[in-house]
Amino acid sequence: MSISPSNPKGTRDFLPLTLSKRNYILNIIKENFKLHGFLEIETPALEKNSTLLGKYGNEGERLVFKILNSGDKVKRADINSLNQNNLSLFTDSLSEKGLRYDLTVPLARFVSQHQNELVFPFKRFQIQKVWRADRPQHGRFQEFTQCDVDIIGPKSIIQEIELIKLYDSIFFQLGFNDIVFKINHRSLLTSLAHYVGFEDKLNEFTTIIDKVEKIGLDGILNELKKIKNSNSISNLSFFFLKDYDTKTLDDLFEKTPQFRNAIDELNTILEFINGENCLNNRIKFDITLARGLNYYTGIIIEATSNSDKSMGSLGGGGRYDNLTSLFNLKSTSGAGISFGLDRIFLQMEKKNLFPKNLKDHFDIIVINFGLNYIKKLYPLIDLLRNDRKKVIIYPANAKLNKQLSYANKHNIAYAILMGENELDNNEIIIKNMKDGKQSNHLIKDVNSSFF
Amino acid sequence: MSISPSNPKGTRDFLPLTLSKRNYILNIIKENFKLHGFLEIETPALEKNSTLLGKYGNEGERLVFKILNSGDKVKRADINSLNQNNLSLFTDSLSEKGLRYDLTVPLARFVSQHQNELVFPFKRFQIQKVWRADRPQHGRFQEFTQCDVDIIGPKSIIQEIELIKLYDSIFFQLGFNDIVFKINHRSLLTSLAHYVGFEDKLNEFTTIIDKVEKIGLDGILNELKKIKNSNSISNLSFFFLKDYDTKTLDDLFEKTPQFRNAIDELNTILEFINGENCLNNRIKFDITLARGLNYYTGIIIEATSNSDKSMGSLGGGGRYDNLTSLFNLKSTSGAGISFGLDRIFLQMEKKNLFPKNLKDHFDIIVINFGLNYIKKLYPLIDLLRNDRKKVIIYPANAKLNKQLSYANKHNIAYAILMGENELDNNEIIIKNMKDGKQSNHLIKDVNSSFF
Repeated sequence: MSISPSNPKGTRDFLPLTLSKRNYILNIIKENFKLHGFLEIETPALEKNSTLLGKYGNEGERLVFKILNSGDKVKRADINSLNQNNLSLFTDSLSEKGLRYDLTVPLARFVSQHQNELVFPFKRFQIQKVWRADRPQHGRFQEFTQCDVDIIGPKSIIQEIELIKLYDSIFFQLGFNDIVFKINHRSLLTSLAHYVGFEDKLNEFTTIIDKVEKIGLDGILNELKKIKNSNSISNLSFFFLKDYDTKTLDDLFEKTPQFRNAIDELNTILEFINGENCLNNRIKFDITLARGLNYYTGIIIEATSNSDKSMGSLGGGGRYDNLTSLFNLKSTSGAGISFGLDRIFLQMEKKNLFPKNLKDHFDIIVINFGLNYIKKLYPLIDLLRNDRKKVIIYPANAKLNKQLSYANKHNIAYAILMGENELDNNEIIIKNMKDGKQSNHLIKDVNSSFF
Repeated sequence: MSISPSNPKGTRDFLPLTLSKRNYILNIIKENFKLHGFLEIETPALEKNSTLLGKYGNEGERLVFKILNSGDKVKRADINSLNQNNLSLFTDSLSEKGLRYDLTVPLARFVSQHQNELVFPFKRFQIQKVWRADRPQHGRFQEFTQCDVDIIGPKSIIQEIELIKLYDSIFFQLGFNDIVFKINHRSLLTSLAHYVGFEDKLNEFTTIIDKVEKIGLDGILNELKKIKNSNSISNLSFFFLKDYDTKTLDDLFEKTPQFRNAIDELNTILEFINGENCLNNRIKFDITLARGLNYYTGIIIEATSNSDKSMGSLGGGGRYDNLTSLFNLKSTSGAGISFGLDRIFLQMEKKNLFPKNLKDHFDIIVINFGLNYIKKLYPLIDLLRNDRKKVIIYPANAKLNKQLSYANKHNIAYAILMGENELDNNEIIIKNMKDGKQSNHLIKDVNSSFF
């Protein structure tokens, strides 16, 4: 038995105040998802290894938590593979299931499995925990919550527009007005890769570009030059350093395949979100926006706080065309965005955006002088709770000071007291814990408007 | 890649309608937990094996899902133990963490670890998933949700009373009025064991008694007789077959240790919940109520539907005195109850207790004739969403019939249409999807009261 019990590294216990702040964020997100016509689903924490593996690349796959087979099944351990140092085969012989690594692959599996039960276009949201066997470090956790919203069905630019409006509503209601939604199109990124001679190394190009926040512009240029030293690489600086609009690009990229369609999509979005339909936050075209995930095929988008770029993105998303085909569901497209709960939480703490009353867990405390007093008070307590007042009865007959100090630690606004005199007279004392004032009332006169 | 992807056996995907029913239950539970002065916490899905093991008995321990160590750590596999068929040692060499098996042990770990950050008495609730490597079968799942509420601190009978009132409020608000709360005291169960000569075999006695719903009265008597054939065993029938109150017991048990205190506690509860403080459901003393879990030490309680006993209990709980001492936190007592979400769900389906409107996921559909129409409609859509109307824009420009059929499949009450004429006249058509009636309105006149 451990002397000082603790939760595993990289995981977190959530105490009441932190949890109520997290739930404040999640409730606003959830409410808006619903108002925008999305339906909630849940998938299990456990997925078959056959569902999880081959989807996240080597790097990601290493980070999938695997469940050890139970009971006698461990006898099937493939010792030969262990001896030959083939750890992956050895692991396969011990495990058939793993923990959910993200919400995207489970969505693809879900849509494919339940296609006959769903109505398409299918607009779903999902807010659940995911697990990654990452090395625990500051701000990176092995267990964290993802909030994803996606539209599965025929492709249409209204979906991208709605997702941006949804982003804006949610961040605005959370108290943000300094968010910049960077927007780009995968085809333009391809054009950019052509421009610097990386047309045959698109994934490498994207991965490097995506690191700009971490390694800076010079870092990116150096990494690209290491792979292929073309003259045009230095010209990339232009795109990182200057403000430009889609028109500037016509001369440079017009001949690149798919360029025209991508520019049209971007312009359609930017024109829609103007005038009457404008955002509370800002949107900005940025041809250098990469989004590391390789499954994106169209518009990509990322939300960052303009006043605190050090934090990185608070969310991102885009259009993907081939995801459900992983599970044999052809010709459906998808578009989605997600919210980075932990980073949003940290930003809101910094900016003081949480309502003050989140720490007021209770409205009223009933001071406990013994069971016969509580018995007489209980009909009133019932009444107050029915009127949605959060009433805590001090859970033992303790000294008055102790009970009042408990009330103050919890920042409770009102106390109800009943001593011997009050019991005899069918009265209670209501004490305002902020200013200390108190007043006597007949029990039968009291209702929730007193608090 | 699997041809027909599926979730693992014993786990579930939740589609929107089922999930909204589950959330309907959980929201009522959560709301009442808060109104009764409980604070929410969360603990991680992953716990150290040192926290989990040695707490659930051999039977339970077998069912803890273990996480396979990642990366090179699997090289530490203890092949000798495997060869000697010591599977438990072999498993230990491959795993350091497991999945949360219940919410009770994590609570004990949490309270002990965070004792200096918490205010005692600590009233917490926790609603999270747990995992058990049980053989999947009808109605038994490897992943399911537990809803626990507990008070940790000094012992006081008001806590048991509040838990029963809380149970009653929640079941009543869910629509139940036929719940029987069976109540007993562990000391009386001890007296009963004395009575039939099992005073030295208390755990076996409790475990057998607890099986009455499964194997019937005769089954119980037979199993007891197999262990020890005392004459008084047949007299047990009396307690199972007859209604009796605590007074009947005085003659039989008065001399048994702790009997008087247990009877006092039961009578205090039963007297409190009378007259003005009565329940919406029923409470019934039952000396045969056992609750299998061995950590209970005082009052125990169980909720069953009187009209459908086949279902088994819908929840249970009680007083435990030694739980946190597992983690070196002495002299705190605990009392708690839990809710069986899956069984409550099934009962509510059977009894038709879910509100009809849970399937109405959207209030209004906006028919999509193209982006220029939607652009003109968007300020109205924003306005309606700000007024908490759930508005879905059909996510593509499809044929009218297809869009209306989509609306009907989702049981949407109103459609907003704008054709060429309406666009020119700044008008919309509002179509009542139930009676088919439609009317034209100037966009600027429309607000959420129209729906």
